[in-house]
Amino acid sequence: MVELNFDKMGGLIPAIVQEAETGEVLMLAFMNKAAWQATLTTGKATYYSRTRQSLWVKGETSGNLQIVKEIRIDCDDDTVLLKVEQVGGAACHTGYKSCFFKTVEGESIRVNGQPVFNPKEVYTK
Amino acid sequence: MVELNFDKMGGLIPAIVQEAETGEVLMLAFMNKAAWQATLTTGKATYYSRTRQSLWVKGETSGNLQIVKEIRIDCDDDTVLLKVEQVGGAACHTGYKSCFFKTVEGESIRVNGQPVFNPKEVYTK
Repeated sequence: MVELNFDKMGGLIPAIVQEAETGEVLMLAFMNKAAWQATLTTGKATYYSRTRQSLWVKGETSGNLQIVKEIRIDCDDDTVLLKVEQVGGAACHTGYKSCFFKTVEGESIRVNGQPVFNPKEVYTK
Repeated sequence: MVELNFDKMGGLIPAIVQEAETGEVLMLAFMNKAAWQATLTTGKATYYSRTRQSLWVKGETSGNLQIVKEIRIDCDDDTVLLKVEQVGGAACHTGYKSCFFKTVEGESIRVNGQPVFNPKEVYTK
């Protein structure tokens, strides 16, 4: 397994998630060593949830899995860039395609696009 | 100033840096509140260097500034996405355009592309 440097952030590394086809940045999450291993072996993006303190297969609840197409690592091996196919067309738990749907314009925020799904219908538990 | 949530990482937030024109992800860095403020007011990407423990205007040594074209924030206001014009054509201190020049292929690493500059010539201090 390709070794990463998990030491800088106490066992975690940031993972940038980009849509393979368009290059749109979908989200940022964190991986611990187990999440990195699971992502490599299953081909499904797996992160570490800091709030739940557990492994988190992205889409396990919503069905919106991320199928890993390419994995890049940075110059000093402490950040991952995943290029994925986003099942269901949306990565954000709010229903938007990308978590980065807000543009900062001076003192205000402009929202880009529309939600792809209604979170209330997807997260029913 | 648009407020971000700096609490989750002890005063820091991750900033993903994407080339505005191509969508290529160039690097990931961290911002504290002062770096966020400086980025907003100067239009030049400014980070917090964890190793030097100080503000870091990207390109202050190499001349390879990042001119901010668009700023996005994520759903829960704890991550920034900068779309930038990369002066000098390379963001990575190794001389590569992107810090993410290494692709993981099973147990091995494939290097993408060639360095744009020779770090020994740029960082002479």
